[in-house]
Amino acid sequence: MISGGYTGKILRVNLTDKSYREEKLSEEVAKNYLGGAGFGLKYLFTEVPGGTGALDEGNKLIFAPGPLTGTKAPCASRVAVAAKSPLTGGAGVALSGGFFPAELKFAGYDILIIEGKSVEPVYVYINGTNVSFRSAKHLWGMKTSDCQRVIKDELHDQNIRIACIGPAGEKLSYMAAIINERHAAGRKGLGAVMGSKNLKAIAVRGNAEIAIADEKAFSEARRRMLQAMKESPVVYPEFSKHGTPMTVDVTGGLGIFPAANWSRTGEWIPFEALGIEGNNKRKSGREFCYGCPVGCSQNKLVREGEYAGYLSIPEFETIYSFGGETGVDNLDSVIAADYLCDELGLDSISTGVAIGFAMELFERGILTEKDTDGMELKFGNHRAMVEMVKKIAFRQGFGDVLADGTRIAAARIGKDSEKYCMHIKGLEMPGYDVRGAKAHGLSFATAYTGADHNRGYAFQEIFGVPVPYPVDRFAIEGKGKLTKWNQDMRAATCDSPLMCAFLLDMAVPGFAAENTADLVSSATGLKFTPEEVYQIGERINNLARVFNIREGLRRKDDTLPERLMTEPLKGGNSKGQYIPKNDLDQMLDEYYAERGWNKEGIPTRRKLESLGLNECIDTLEKIGGLKID
Amino acid sequence: MISGGYTGKILRVNLTDKSYREEKLSEEVAKNYLGGAGFGLKYLFTEVPGGTGALDEGNKLIFAPGPLTGTKAPCASRVAVAAKSPLTGGAGVALSGGFFPAELKFAGYDILIIEGKSVEPVYVYINGTNVSFRSAKHLWGMKTSDCQRVIKDELHDQNIRIACIGPAGEKLSYMAAIINERHAAGRKGLGAVMGSKNLKAIAVRGNAEIAIADEKAFSEARRRMLQAMKESPVVYPEFSKHGTPMTVDVTGGLGIFPAANWSRTGEWIPFEALGIEGNNKRKSGREFCYGCPVGCSQNKLVREGEYAGYLSIPEFETIYSFGGETGVDNLDSVIAADYLCDELGLDSISTGVAIGFAMELFERGILTEKDTDGMELKFGNHRAMVEMVKKIAFRQGFGDVLADGTRIAAARIGKDSEKYCMHIKGLEMPGYDVRGAKAHGLSFATAYTGADHNRGYAFQEIFGVPVPYPVDRFAIEGKGKLTKWNQDMRAATCDSPLMCAFLLDMAVPGFAAENTADLVSSATGLKFTPEEVYQIGERINNLARVFNIREGLRRKDDTLPERLMTEPLKGGNSKGQYIPKNDLDQMLDEYYAERGWNKEGIPTRRKLESLGLNECIDTLEKIGGLKID
Repeated sequence: MISGGYTGKILRVNLTDKSYREEKLSEEVAKNYLGGAGFGLKYLFTEVPGGTGALDEGNKLIFAPGPLTGTKAPCASRVAVAAKSPLTGGAGVALSGGFFPAELKFAGYDILIIEGKSVEPVYVYINGTNVSFRSAKHLWGMKTSDCQRVIKDELHDQNIRIACIGPAGEKLSYMAAIINERHAAGRKGLGAVMGSKNLKAIAVRGNAEIAIADEKAFSEARRRMLQAMKESPVVYPEFSKHGTPMTVDVTGGLGIFPAANWSRTGEWIPFEALGIEGNNKRKSGREFCYGCPVGCSQNKLVREGEYAGYLSIPEFETIYSFGGETGVDNLDSVIAADYLCDELGLDSISTGVAIGFAMELFERGILTEKDTDGMELKFGNHRAMVEMVKKIAFRQGFGDVLADGTRIAAARIGKDSEKYCMHIKGLEMPGYDVRGAKAHGLSFATAYTGADHNRGYAFQEIFGVPVPYPVDRFAIEGKGKLTKWNQDMRAATCDSPLMCAFLLDMAVPGFAAENTADLVSSATGLKFTPEEVYQIGERINNLARVFNIREGLRRKDDTLPERLMTEPLKGGNSKGQYIPKNDLDQMLDEYYAERGWNKEGIPTRRKLESLGLNECIDTLEKIGGLKID
Repeated sequence: MISGGYTGKILRVNLTDKSYREEKLSEEVAKNYLGGAGFGLKYLFTEVPGGTGALDEGNKLIFAPGPLTGTKAPCASRVAVAAKSPLTGGAGVALSGGFFPAELKFAGYDILIIEGKSVEPVYVYINGTNVSFRSAKHLWGMKTSDCQRVIKDELHDQNIRIACIGPAGEKLSYMAAIINERHAAGRKGLGAVMGSKNLKAIAVRGNAEIAIADEKAFSEARRRMLQAMKESPVVYPEFSKHGTPMTVDVTGGLGIFPAANWSRTGEWIPFEALGIEGNNKRKSGREFCYGCPVGCSQNKLVREGEYAGYLSIPEFETIYSFGGETGVDNLDSVIAADYLCDELGLDSISTGVAIGFAMELFERGILTEKDTDGMELKFGNHRAMVEMVKKIAFRQGFGDVLADGTRIAAARIGKDSEKYCMHIKGLEMPGYDVRGAKAHGLSFATAYTGADHNRGYAFQEIFGVPVPYPVDRFAIEGKGKLTKWNQDMRAATCDSPLMCAFLLDMAVPGFAAENTADLVSSATGLKFTPEEVYQIGERINNLARVFNIREGLRRKDDTLPERLMTEPLKGGNSKGQYIPKNDLDQMLDEYYAERGWNKEGIPTRRKLESLGLNECIDTLEKIGGLKID
């Protein structure tokens, strides 16, 4: 029986006929998928038929917080957003924090499923159990902060929390994000899915309290987690103080901070400008998500020069994408670009990588000023970089060429440009040059969402945490097993409960499954063992794999950008490293074997049966031609 | 006895020693000054000694809502801000709307007096009767929207209302505004006074209800006012629909929409681009101040082109200053400049006029690209115009030359540039070319705040409303009497109760004094006759006059920019009109006589006695050499 933690309710909203209804969350789904990404993928798999276009009316957009969201569990105010991704054509999941996730729980829902498509721009207002559809014609074209402010004003309630898209989502950019306050469910183009439904925003206000099934046990589990955070050598001394930008210094030190579209990684490392030092100069307070004691979000304010007045919270990934990736060491311009991404509703990683990609093409003469609206799109040209963000969001001029990500841009540009495309499965690479961190490489290659650092972050290679065992970041051997562990743990202990991933990476890796089991069991009254938790992670990764197989993805798509397999790093502390095709294949073989998948990367009947994924077996059988026995 | 309407309390906050105390509002002050601007000027006069520098610690910054603010009286959520003005050196009063004014009443205060100066940046948090001083170091340099958001987040209360300054106020620009949400107490550089005190923001949250002394009478007065608004030929059919931008079409039609720093008024009238048509194309909903049924604030959103994404509420005056005045007919750029003024905390009128002034100097060769950081500062160059707004706010390059307004800029530039300065008493001209609207000319020349359309707006000349009598806008005769009426009515029925001025101009001119008397009497329980209300207006204007005389202002300062006295309009429906010095003198003589002031514009003892302004008599006597008998 579901009580506490889970609200036990699903809200299904249909934009086509402007209807909505409540459904019950089944105990089976809760036990098998936990929450968040698990819930999102489960419903996505079951309800969105194979072959549905990501921007078709038939795609669904699912918001799911977790069983800990809105409780006193630390760092759990997060929401997973799931839809078929326009960027990858596979299962798309993106997470974000803030207050919106908790508010969705307070409104009473474990899952919000958005279906159909409105003829005209609308927004959905969920006020507790009262759902209304309101015109968003006047909001269309607005920046995300304007949109959120106007909605609060017109609904006469400043406590409403809103997730919305910017102009980029409206214009169906495959790099469009969904923004709540200054938090983004950024990646995989889910903002375009929302835009394709003519849905500008979801405004939520709730009053329900999230019950706790066993207060005493919950309290004890919570205390233990807080203690682990306190004891972590990283969380409070460093991470709370510097936030993710400290990773510039860390990856720079390892020689894996990507530079100039990954052509100069290790050779050019602007530590001082882009790392802790540069960031701390611009620090101006920080912000906390609901119920978070860490407050890793740091406001960075430009106080002088041509970007004076810009303020944003540039995370490490954004500093990589608008900094290193584009050869820009002007942190002020990175803050400006980041601000624009939040306001215009773009994923800062993909956008920066798309611009860096175009810069390399420009430097190589594949693009000229004739193509770029007269812009000198060279590495390091921060003004052009900032300008391009706007052009992409509004699909103006050359911005339209890049607006759907590097893979499609390369197809549009032609001339061998795909060679310089830093993406996997269509998703632009995050800021870890995997040539010097090979579990990262394998995880990016195999993550169901494409080149995604958030589906199985190999913190062992970056922070040296020896869990589940010590790791040599240059080694190939053992990375299959490690990657399975990282991916399943990530899905089970972060993406689904929903818990901030930093905790897994920095504070509780040693007992993440136990931590999740204890917190979720005590909060919800459903009993989860650590083993069951881990298995949920495995189940999610298998389900998502089959989703992608249904969409046509195969072993050949578990790959890396060509450059990483052919060009050894030329400088820095990973000098000489790369991942030749053979090494990747060796890692893939090990990984598939660990997963109980066959050589082609297809989950076997036995594995799927052991996870209770019978609908996946049906799916694979229907596709035909796949060996699953 | 004070009951209802007034809270009866004054909050005095000292930034030097971080202390505060409550004082009682005396019935005498209430009866003599009504509220808002009246209260502000009264305390300014009494407490800020003559000769105090506007940016000295001794200047005070006074916020005063009115007795109707926070009640159900329509259109009364306004606050007056008073301080000695750095721009004029005289009494500075600016008003703004929004929700902050009502919240200040809900917190329990009729007047907030800010004294002293903090050593480090602070903000003041008024939570009901609880006042705290909080560090604003992390807010210093922030745009106004960021500042407001961060404060709400860190105080964990989204219902706080905040008035704050932007970078311009911090950098003591004499054109700096005080911003709450997107409302500005814009003019006279009061943002610099706030900045000089190292006060970034005032955050207010209240829960008190504003009592009404006589509900029945109040309700009846309110009904009558709403009826008048309904019957007005202007308020609902036009004004509520188009907002103030409709004035572009109106003044353009009259040939008095100023163009190119007033050098081409009547010859160049970009109706289509800047007027109702252009504005309506960009309309995207509107916003209401607390308790307002009109909602004249219209969001204008740029949806395409290089300014795509910018959203603001450009009022008529802003369209004049960044449009007509600078020769720019690109409304998108006006919206961008307006947005930047709100965010960086600048008065949009003064800023636009300063830029237009510089453009004329550039066209005349008085300035060259050497002076303007390489910018081609020609009329119509909208990109340079937008760029200059930022440079002014941050005092970058040539922006520093303009940052303190045209008068000081002219002194810095020299070379006869004062000739092209469109200011009176240091305050930049609003958007009515007074050559074709002479009561405007006289009111601008004599208003205690300088060239201010809000101290005695001659609506008779613009909207043809025949109250108190029909008016020929080109005539000289009768303008002295009319201006006294307009100024006293404005002070008594708008600036002090506090009531939106649009109502006086468009809906209730015929019974504004009665309307005010009825509403304020029934709300507060203090009895005011219409005659007493009118006399309050007169008292305020006399008090302010003596304030200015104490600061050294004399008849010679009741003047117009040279151009308006020497250059007849060359085109449009006011062609040939101007205000030769003789005509101005004739109007001044009539005005002074109507006011009971002597030929030098000094209030006589008799007049001051009749208004109970004995402290003003003392002041004038102390100055010496002034004839007052």
